[in-house]
Amino acid sequence: MKTKKEVDDFIQHGHKTHLPQICIDCAIFGYHNQQLKVLLAKWKGLDGYSLPGGFVGRMEPLSSAANRILKERTALDNVFLQQFYTFGDSQFRSQKHKYSLLPKDNWLSERTLSIGYYALVNFSRVTVEEDILTEQYVWEDIKKIPRLLFDHNEMLESALRHIKINLHHQPIGINLLENKFTLPEIQSLYETILGKKLDRRNFPKKLMSLGLIKDTRTVRSIGQHRSPKLYSFDKRKYNQYIKEGIVLTF
Amino acid sequence: MKTKKEVDDFIQHGHKTHLPQICIDCAIFGYHNQQLKVLLAKWKGLDGYSLPGGFVGRMEPLSSAANRILKERTALDNVFLQQFYTFGDSQFRSQKHKYSLLPKDNWLSERTLSIGYYALVNFSRVTVEEDILTEQYVWEDIKKIPRLLFDHNEMLESALRHIKINLHHQPIGINLLENKFTLPEIQSLYETILGKKLDRRNFPKKLMSLGLIKDTRTVRSIGQHRSPKLYSFDKRKYNQYIKEGIVLTF
Repeated sequence: MKTKKEVDDFIQHGHKTHLPQICIDCAIFGYHNQQLKVLLAKWKGLDGYSLPGGFVGRMEPLSSAANRILKERTALDNVFLQQFYTFGDSQFRSQKHKYSLLPKDNWLSERTLSIGYYALVNFSRVTVEEDILTEQYVWEDIKKIPRLLFDHNEMLESALRHIKINLHHQPIGINLLENKFTLPEIQSLYETILGKKLDRRNFPKKLMSLGLIKDTRTVRSIGQHRSPKLYSFDKRKYNQYIKEGIVLTF
Repeated sequence: MKTKKEVDDFIQHGHKTHLPQICIDCAIFGYHNQQLKVLLAKWKGLDGYSLPGGFVGRMEPLSSAANRILKERTALDNVFLQQFYTFGDSQFRSQKHKYSLLPKDNWLSERTLSIGYYALVNFSRVTVEEDILTEQYVWEDIKKIPRLLFDHNEMLESALRHIKINLHHQPIGINLLENKFTLPEIQSLYETILGKKLDRRNFPKKLMSLGLIKDTRTVRSIGQHRSPKLYSFDKRKYNQYIKEGIVLTF
């Protein structure tokens, strides 16, 4: 939404074009150089941050809605969003919201279930654009998350739990690492998300034995006596594993 | 719902007490003696089977709704239900349903998103009761699932994928096995759900090293020369792992 008129129309008439009482919220994790951050939105008129989110069109497939919302709200495009959980238990989700800015009995003040999606992007490569509803977007370190609005702290923790579990079952790394990377670089990616150190010998061995990464037979020159080998993903295997799943332990 | 009047009231006025356009569907897997089945409901007036499901009360927490629906529809109580995915992409879920039995423009004919839950029970220990909406419940072998109503085949396949992944991250077995069981019995449980054979030496070793099962120092007398050792779950560890999660590979 770009103009105040569009926002006012949405508040007044959005329930005619969107499903009421169900929304989508997105936990967008950003990785770069051993840092894991999450994208938070500061709404105009609300004192605090939340995950970016929005509503589903009446006849719009759920996954299309998730991608559209993310693109509209943040200008992030072509992001691989994964649904992880639907929230409807907390007090915030079982009662009517109380937004002081909304007209009385507005559809947006009703109880709303939230379908959670997450994604992992390289935050150094994306530009996030504020829209008319949003005062500001920030990439916040996941170790320094403030108290968020509604039940969004709980949602964020759940997203992190799911992403950690899915590290065991889906490859990650394309779009997060350079095309050619060193073994310490891919290991740092996993270690940063898991929040723990992994074995320097076993971890690369497991990725190799799955056929997920391959030796490019090139090296990076760092100094006179340091030239670590460079690896790349086997894209055919990578895509196959995204579809079929893997079991990877570390 | 026990009477025709209750059902008629629900069709006419259910949207006043329940969230519209969102429902819960349950994939209830039953295990017994190396057989894995799923509970299917044949609705009165609809030609075909579906997963049992229902609607969420306007102010009812989502997880309470899932347990209530399962209990009302099937008389199954105290079942550990787990949410696995919310469906809103298929044609069936993006368009209005066409139930010939419903009044014109009834709220139940609207597009409905479905929140999927699954559970695993011992089907030899539970009695399923039909209600007024349901002609019949059947436990169907998961290898012989017929064409189901709506997108329920897709939902069932998704539930199976999730349960297989979760075998790597949560203990299972309490309420499915006897209090004391042999190693081949617990291995059969895992093999039946995974649909593949596991290593006879490594699998028990991994359960033991997690501290999940313990030697009861008793045996079962099968014949003169056969008396396999009996094991039981360490319930403290089991509950701890349900909360904290594990990484179990096989």
